[in-house]
Amino acid sequence: MKCKKCSNQAVIHLRAHNIGLCREHFVEFFEKRVQRAIDKFKMFTREDKVLVAVSSGKDSSAVLHALHRLGYNVEGLFLKMGRHTNAAERVVQKLAESTRIRVNIYDVTQHFGGLGTGEIAQIVKRPVCSICGIVRRHWMNRYAVENGFTVLVTGHNMDDEATFLFGNILNWQIEYMARQWPVLEKTHDKFVRKAKPLIYVSERETYAYVLLNDIPFMEQKCPFSKGATSSTYKKHLNAIEYEQPGAKHRLLFGYFDNLRNTLRAENTVELKECSVCGFPTTEEKCQYCKLVERVNEKLLESHKQGGKDA
Amino acid sequence: MKCKKCSNQAVIHLRAHNIGLCREHFVEFFEKRVQRAIDKFKMFTREDKVLVAVSSGKDSSAVLHALHRLGYNVEGLFLKMGRHTNAAERVVQKLAESTRIRVNIYDVTQHFGGLGTGEIAQIVKRPVCSICGIVRRHWMNRYAVENGFTVLVTGHNMDDEATFLFGNILNWQIEYMARQWPVLEKTHDKFVRKAKPLIYVSERETYAYVLLNDIPFMEQKCPFSKGATSSTYKKHLNAIEYEQPGAKHRLLFGYFDNLRNTLRAENTVELKECSVCGFPTTEEKCQYCKLVERVNEKLLESHKQGGKDA
Repeated sequence: MKCKKCSNQAVIHLRAHNIGLCREHFVEFFEKRVQRAIDKFKMFTREDKVLVAVSSGKDSSAVLHALHRLGYNVEGLFLKMGRHTNAAERVVQKLAESTRIRVNIYDVTQHFGGLGTGEIAQIVKRPVCSICGIVRRHWMNRYAVENGFTVLVTGHNMDDEATFLFGNILNWQIEYMARQWPVLEKTHDKFVRKAKPLIYVSERETYAYVLLNDIPFMEQKCPFSKGATSSTYKKHLNAIEYEQPGAKHRLLFGYFDNLRNTLRAENTVELKECSVCGFPTTEEKCQYCKLVERVNEKLLESHKQGGKDA
Repeated sequence: MKCKKCSNQAVIHLRAHNIGLCREHFVEFFEKRVQRAIDKFKMFTREDKVLVAVSSGKDSSAVLHALHRLGYNVEGLFLKMGRHTNAAERVVQKLAESTRIRVNIYDVTQHFGGLGTGEIAQIVKRPVCSICGIVRRHWMNRYAVENGFTVLVTGHNMDDEATFLFGNILNWQIEYMARQWPVLEKTHDKFVRKAKPLIYVSERETYAYVLLNDIPFMEQKCPFSKGATSSTYKKHLNAIEYEQPGAKHRLLFGYFDNLRNTLRAENTVELKECSVCGFPTTEEKCQYCKLVERVNEKLLESHKQGGKDA
């Protein structure tokens, strides 16, 4: 297969567009799509101070690299979540060295007496993905706000977003559907704007981009992600995409074009300030602060228990 | 596995409900679900004159039988669509004999110079499913109106409706989505009310119902249905249902409960009367009358051609 642009040997066949592209023109295509997402959804400008949440995975590594190449003012943020993120941290350090982009490392275990998310999940008897989500959402936003960043970028690609939408449709989670959009505006002093510049690129394209650019990343899923419902939805959506190339794009952007505004208008949420940390929440106390309290209670209990037993 | 109601040997395991039922209690369950659909969506009463569109397939045979058992005033209507429906017609005649329900037979080929839908599709160079749909929709409604029926019933089951919705979501066919509902009211003098009493039962349950009641039906798909896009959607939705029993029900009724009214309010259509047949349409001339004209033109052309050649 030849590159559609220059007739050199293609390195990738884009089924949804039915074209082949060589290395150079694929990288150009990819970065143009990132730029298009930023422009179309008015995500940020070159004046913004952008914080990219990096995990060591291909998506966040790709978006950090692409935004830097496109001339944006970016830094990374890596959250240490316990011993299981040590290997990821080393990859992120390589990423910082090879791209010469500053990556900030923040250890969230300090707020839980040194415990990682795996241990926290056991203590409070809840799924580790839900714990991890609460902790990451809180600290990504809080770190950005407290360090003067104007935008928080995540590496969610089109497959992630289409899968999220697909799962929410199958269960008609209308409130989640209403909130889904490639950029979330700053609706509170202590909220930073959130943006997903990979919304126009697929998982496979992101994978090709990190390989072709020799960007450090870790080809390994989170050890806790096994059996997640989202991977069921992903599998089925992949099967549909395989038979009907472009199906994910149609599902996601068809939703954005035809329905999302209607749902948005009918599903607004009122924000309060958490009585403990002051960050925005829909309840009296935010989920993160409730979790911190619960873990500390449990630790105290087991400490007392230990004292009695001795 | 035992019947949940009487502890006799079960004949069916309903995965979505996670119960087993014996023959007697399954038939009761099935008919209760039909009754529930009729009541919940105010489909019709025992005073209505109900016409059931029968095809010889399990679904329409099941609904005809169930409505009769539930004490409704029903007759059947079978449309002859060409030579390929001859075998189906014989099954329908058996169905009428064994249930002692009157089934009317109407030959639509008389309006196309004796041609069947397969031949019509070839002449006008369009997919046979689209031709068949136009002809059936027109004559089912027209036959009911012209013969004093107050309701037209079709055998669409929950799988059919969930699949239709699923395909429309994947392509965001908002107008089709807005129209989907288990009962369509009479919005015009020459429209009869339409109802789908099998909306709460699955394809597998309908299949079990016809087998257990010894109801005549033809276990064969329409010879033209091969490769239809709807079977792709059905396959994927079946795979999801298999992993998450109840997924189809959640998709369909979640849509009815959460979103359909919103879409309905924003997508109303204005009905005109067809300038040829007088039946309601959104255009000047209805699709059926356009088709009749086009076929007659083509037949006239080929007749002239034949004259020249001779």
